[in-house]
Amino acid sequence: MIREAAMLHVKEGLEGEFEAAFRRAEPIIAGMKGYLSHSLSKCMEETHKYLLLVEWETLEDHTKGFRGSPKYQEWKALLHRFYSPFPVVEHFQDLSNSDYVKRKTD
Amino acid sequence: MIREAAMLHVKEGLEGEFEAAFRRAEPIIAGMKGYLSHSLSKCMEETHKYLLLVEWETLEDHTKGFRGSPKYQEWKALLHRFYSPFPVVEHFQDLSNSDYVKRKTD
Repeated sequence: MIREAAMLHVKEGLEGEFEAAFRRAEPIIAGMKGYLSHSLSKCMEETHKYLLLVEWETLEDHTKGFRGSPKYQEWKALLHRFYSPFPVVEHFQDLSNSDYVKRKTD
Repeated sequence: MIREAAMLHVKEGLEGEFEAAFRRAEPIIAGMKGYLSHSLSKCMEETHKYLLLVEWETLEDHTKGFRGSPKYQEWKALLHRFYSPFPVVEHFQDLSNSDYVKRKTD
């Protein structure tokens, strides 16, 4: 499992409009091959900042499958105009959970 | 549910030692009041960077309960020496999942 993480800086004043657009965009990403789950959460310290997390089966499901798909154009059209600056998207390999679950059930 | 998120920059060369220390530290956080779940994942683009996510019932379970507890001193002793710079820890309120689950089951 690969976790995509992006800190989204939404232009101030557009937070409500962004959240509504994100709700329309969710089914796009959720319908992609290799999609496992996602969350969008709103920063309590800086209220125009959001954390997007998407879990994918493989890195390529995101970087090639999703970004190379026609659906990505719909995603972009819905969301990209809200960001300033444009977000850095990074990928993370999970280390802790399975070990921890193992220890809990020992 | 509150999601604590911190990007951890681990001193280069100490990644293996940090991961082993984190495995020892996991039961500390997992035993706290209000703890729901956590994950540690390793950045694929910058391999000395890690994303720590912890889900808490309330903000205060983290900021007061955990940080104010004697157990936090153990957590610090295990982990804080690996970080440079010291991480910024932020808190996020989840927006997407419950709505999305609702729509999926409609």
